[in-house]
Amino acid sequence: MIEDKIKELGFELPEPTKPMAAYIPSIKTGNYIFTAGQVPFVKGELKYKGRVGSDLTLEEAQKAAQICALNCLGVVKSISGSLENIEQIVKLTVFVCSADNFLSQHLVANGASELLGKIFGEIGKHARSAVGVNALPGGSAVEIEMIVKVNN
Amino acid sequence: MIEDKIKELGFELPEPTKPMAAYIPSIKTGNYIFTAGQVPFVKGELKYKGRVGSDLTLEEAQKAAQICALNCLGVVKSISGSLENIEQIVKLTVFVCSADNFLSQHLVANGASELLGKIFGEIGKHARSAVGVNALPGGSAVEIEMIVKVNN
Amino acid sequence: MIEDKIKELGFELPEPTKPMAAYIPSIKTGNYIFTAGQVPFVKGELKYKGRVGSDLTLEEAQKAAQICALNCLGVVKSISGSLENIEQIVKLTVFVCSADNFLSQHLVANGASELLGKIFGEIGKHARSAVGVNALPGGSAVEIEMIVKVNN
Repeated sequence: MIEDKIKELGFELPEPTKPMAAYIPSIKTGNYIFTAGQVPFVKGELKYKGRVGSDLTLEEAQKAAQICALNCLGVVKSISGSLENIEQIVKLTVFVCSADNFLSQHLVANGASELLGKIFGEIGKHARSAVGVNALPGGSAVEIEMIVKVNN
Repeated sequence: MIEDKIKELGFELPEPTKPMAAYIPSIKTGNYIFTAGQVPFVKGELKYKGRVGSDLTLEEAQKAAQICALNCLGVVKSISGSLENIEQIVKLTVFVCSADNFLSQHLVANGASELLGKIFGEIGKHARSAVGVNALPGGSAVEIEMIVKVNN
Repeated sequence: MIEDKIKELGFELPEPTKPMAAYIPSIKTGNYIFTAGQVPFVKGELKYKGRVGSDLTLEEAQKAAQICALNCLGVVKSISGSLENIEQIVKLTVFVCSADNFLSQHLVANGASELLGKIFGEIGKHARSAVGVNALPGGSAVEIEMIVKVNN
């Protein structure tokens, strides 16, 4: 079971986050689920804020990316019913709030990608874009959106 | 009728905007329409320019987001034939040209999301990402792209 | 043949680039291929680095965008088997590492869009977003992701 695997790895599948604004946390259309952009909320508190490379280290940002990925899974579960329905993690877009001279957005995004690989194995392998930006909602250090294929 | 609703709300469905460059304003593939990124053009003039949080207020940026959303609908109509064919607004990506210390991209994006809710009701509810960026084409304050499901 | 056309235009279809990190270069789901964000790697070397408008000219950035587009095609070929299977270039998202006062992201993106038009003709016409960002992985000047519809 995927949720057992998440626990084994020392993580917890969060309750689906509430949107910060007027939209829904995820939408299912055909066999695809698009999540809204997820920020590193932990129990309603934004845990990693600031610019990576100045306010936060790479390691902290990778942890932020892990939380964003878990929050994506939380909202996928809430709409699909179970993580067992996931057929493929298709795509991540990873926005990293970056100091102007921070150029390791891909390594930040690895926090999310490697965790998904450990949780899902082959079906966790996805295409991905990682980009730097100068500001994210509420001061988030990272924001991740996910496209998932499900079998229900 | 959706277009009547838009008028009732005090807005106008624009003629489809012309791309600023070598691409098409929207594409239909299967039952999905992907719009190109829409900026706040009103009758060929870019109405909101600059960085939100320094050059523009939140309120101005929300109006810019409304125009971007209407421009998305304009190009959806031009390819689908009618807004009545929309089955679901699936996803918005909202890029906000932001001062470095402006952290309310989600509130800017609400300008678009709330308007779509008022126009479409249940089928207007979408997943969404809102991110800050340091520059947009032509100095636009906001750029929005939309994925829509249609029944034709 | 599409690959002949690429040669005729004076370009070369690259070998698929290796991801800079823990993800796959492209994924096929149904009849769609999503590429990972492609940067201007040429034979393993990142050819265009820095911020457009300060470190690089518009013309250099357009060349970077061409390389990103060709790298997208390279990874599409690697997963689809042949570029002949492409039914439609659906969507590009073009991230341009921009000086704060550089506002011609759409012209940078034209480097990619016009090349795709020349290579593919009608089926090369796509929807597109072009945005500026303050930083990209490894210092890349441009990053492009592509969605393609294939017939296999």
